[in-house]
Amino acid sequence: MGQAVDDEATTETAAEPGTASRRQVIGRAIGAAGVVAVGGVGYGVARATEPGGSPSPPASSASDIVPFYGANQAGIATPAQDRLAFAAFDVTSGSAQAFQVMLGTWAAAAAQMTKGLPVGAVDNNPQSPPIDTGEADGLSAAGLTITVGFGPSLFDHRFGLAGKRPAALADLPTLPGDGSLQPARSGGDLCVQACADDPTVAFHVIRNFARLARGTAVIRWSQLGFGRTSSTSDSQQTERNLMGFKDGTRNIKAEAADDLRDHVWVGSETDQAWMTGGSYLVARRIRMLIESWDTDYLSDQENVFGRFKTSGAPLTGKSEFDTPDLAAKHTDGTPVIPLNAHIRLAGPETNNNQKILRRGYSYTDGIDSATGLLDAGLFFLAYQKDPRRQFVPIQTRLGHQDNLNEYIRHTGSALFAVPPGVSAAGDWWGKSLFA
Amino acid sequence: MGQAVDDEATTETAAEPGTASRRQVIGRAIGAAGVVAVGGVGYGVARATEPGGSPSPPASSASDIVPFYGANQAGIATPAQDRLAFAAFDVTSGSAQAFQVMLGTWAAAAAQMTKGLPVGAVDNNPQSPPIDTGEADGLSAAGLTITVGFGPSLFDHRFGLAGKRPAALADLPTLPGDGSLQPARSGGDLCVQACADDPTVAFHVIRNFARLARGTAVIRWSQLGFGRTSSTSDSQQTERNLMGFKDGTRNIKAEAADDLRDHVWVGSETDQAWMTGGSYLVARRIRMLIESWDTDYLSDQENVFGRFKTSGAPLTGKSEFDTPDLAAKHTDGTPVIPLNAHIRLAGPETNNNQKILRRGYSYTDGIDSATGLLDAGLFFLAYQKDPRRQFVPIQTRLGHQDNLNEYIRHTGSALFAVPPGVSAAGDWWGKSLFA
Repeated sequence: MGQAVDDEATTETAAEPGTASRRQVIGRAIGAAGVVAVGGVGYGVARATEPGGSPSPPASSASDIVPFYGANQAGIATPAQDRLAFAAFDVTSGSAQAFQVMLGTWAAAAAQMTKGLPVGAVDNNPQSPPIDTGEADGLSAAGLTITVGFGPSLFDHRFGLAGKRPAALADLPTLPGDGSLQPARSGGDLCVQACADDPTVAFHVIRNFARLARGTAVIRWSQLGFGRTSSTSDSQQTERNLMGFKDGTRNIKAEAADDLRDHVWVGSETDQAWMTGGSYLVARRIRMLIESWDTDYLSDQENVFGRFKTSGAPLTGKSEFDTPDLAAKHTDGTPVIPLNAHIRLAGPETNNNQKILRRGYSYTDGIDSATGLLDAGLFFLAYQKDPRRQFVPIQTRLGHQDNLNEYIRHTGSALFAVPPGVSAAGDWWGKSLFA
Repeated sequence: MGQAVDDEATTETAAEPGTASRRQVIGRAIGAAGVVAVGGVGYGVARATEPGGSPSPPASSASDIVPFYGANQAGIATPAQDRLAFAAFDVTSGSAQAFQVMLGTWAAAAAQMTKGLPVGAVDNNPQSPPIDTGEADGLSAAGLTITVGFGPSLFDHRFGLAGKRPAALADLPTLPGDGSLQPARSGGDLCVQACADDPTVAFHVIRNFARLARGTAVIRWSQLGFGRTSSTSDSQQTERNLMGFKDGTRNIKAEAADDLRDHVWVGSETDQAWMTGGSYLVARRIRMLIESWDTDYLSDQENVFGRFKTSGAPLTGKSEFDTPDLAAKHTDGTPVIPLNAHIRLAGPETNNNQKILRRGYSYTDGIDSATGLLDAGLFFLAYQKDPRRQFVPIQTRLGHQDNLNEYIRHTGSALFAVPPGVSAAGDWWGKSLFA
């Protein structure tokens, strides 16, 4: 991932110079589009005279900071952070200019927040609202990444983008098991995935983006993920999902350049050049019927997944990273890894060697008032080069045959085209779409 | 806080000896009540022969572990951990014996989990469900504390406890601003507060307690808190709430023995000796109207709280811990800290020197479907010696006069008597109630 230097913005917390640079950043972001000035967003003049001292110094060190600018967006092949705040937005303005101003403002704000800096001064002019909402003031960058995607609905008549819709952004078909999908947890013109090792840092992004979007876009749905379930780096331990099983053992890892090229990053095969270096995100809110699962015998649970629960080894192996032997049979001729086991149906051997990069998080949203049971499960996020060849056939197979279906319900679904990275100050997600 | 040694349980992850000790722990907990054996709970025989290896070793070091046994419950004066999972339960069984078995089982399970150990083997008999749900297997204790309380409704005819209800557990009166309280987020026979530095460790407690309660109690409501907002130790930095202000600067700290004695721990003044060494917990789900707040001028926000936003200093001071000067006046005679400022109304000077120990967490529960606005705020938890002299008059004053009321809504409310600590294996919360 490349990194464009944005030196001026790093002086953010200094008083007057920092303010000037912030305005430059926003100015460059917006000015390049030839659109209106950004005064209405509320960026103002810093107040260096507040009794009680100057703003909190940034708490970040270099190791806390994931570069925002680059060829690909961060938050995909970045080692998965511990916490997630995710939101889908709908654009309410019909103005392509207003929409671009919002994206440019978001990008400038993202460049700040990913450095552990506020989007603007908290103690600006006392006779105006603070520019940053302040709850993350004094916290480190916490490995924050901000990843933005465009939903199929964005490519309608509103912004003249109908001809720019990639073929791979085809609406997801109705898949087996989709009967529990809730419209209020599905779809969206845009998505924002904020991942960090501190949940307040992640939430701060969604809140400030919602604020900066005012008048242009509104949150359609949101989801907090409290713990990551997939490792995306060889440096990370595999975590357990809420069924108690290690999840993502065979995931695509950041170190696997070939896998990223073959299965994650959009390449020259795309029909829309603006997506080169991007990826496609499928988000599924998968509720687990954990009370029912918890009554299932251990051996049944292990047969559902095809792995041993404690070690995570495949039923044909001894340790977690042993390759499953799908041909192995018991002496009575039955397969050791059952025909309907999750790892058999989801694995590349069964799916024309297709893989997806999973980046899911455990969630809980309290009690399901209809049943009194815990509303908890997996917020599944998967990145891929082409959902038509990856998520759709894999989930079709799983939805038909996976023994896990007895214990899960897909309650939300969304698809987004995730454009390549923002290259430098003055750029924003999908800027070339409007060129 | 005292610490009773429970040596046998520390061998938990060894195969047969660990299992024996687990059964001893449960046996002691239950046997001491002279009630039924605990076989029905599902504690079984460990399986040391699972291919793929033995259970994950505990990841905890001594510094991760907060002692569970002690004179007072942990999770009150313990330095506030980063994450919260909280649930209120209703007892559905009419059997006092079943209720005691559940409390005894919970206590035995809590002794395990607070050491970073599962409540029982994950890889027990394959022909029975795993004893522990497994999602925290391999994680450290993460400073876990488990704090249990009894709601007013428990002291009815069901369990013969009507005569044991402390006077201080009087139902909270209807307070000004209570018009938005939701019954589905209020009350409960019992509460469980699980705090840890890892949210999966905290959630694991609520889930396993709900499971161990099956047939005896069910969750009434639950709340996840993603970030602490109150420090409860001089060793901790003051965090910011979702309004961007430092919260809890003047909180009671673990190091302030006089404050704990005078304001938190129930002493000889109680009418119910079983509560000596306990405390009373008031839980309030306080939604913040953050979109509205974010449009307010900085100077207005600072006048609402009576503090500078960035530094946290009182409007009469220069740094966070300066004592507010409530008498200070501007040259025109108006008070520097406004008469309706939050810190004036909530401070001990205005409240007959009463203080409470706050232990709140920021929450977000997605989008309010009625308005499209973020449902986010503060899950307020406050411990005290007597709510009639502490929370009730303070909140009455705040509810009438606090300028903050324009930006908040109390949407849930509950009160619990939090008994003294569990002394050792074989004891449980409130055991003497049934003696």
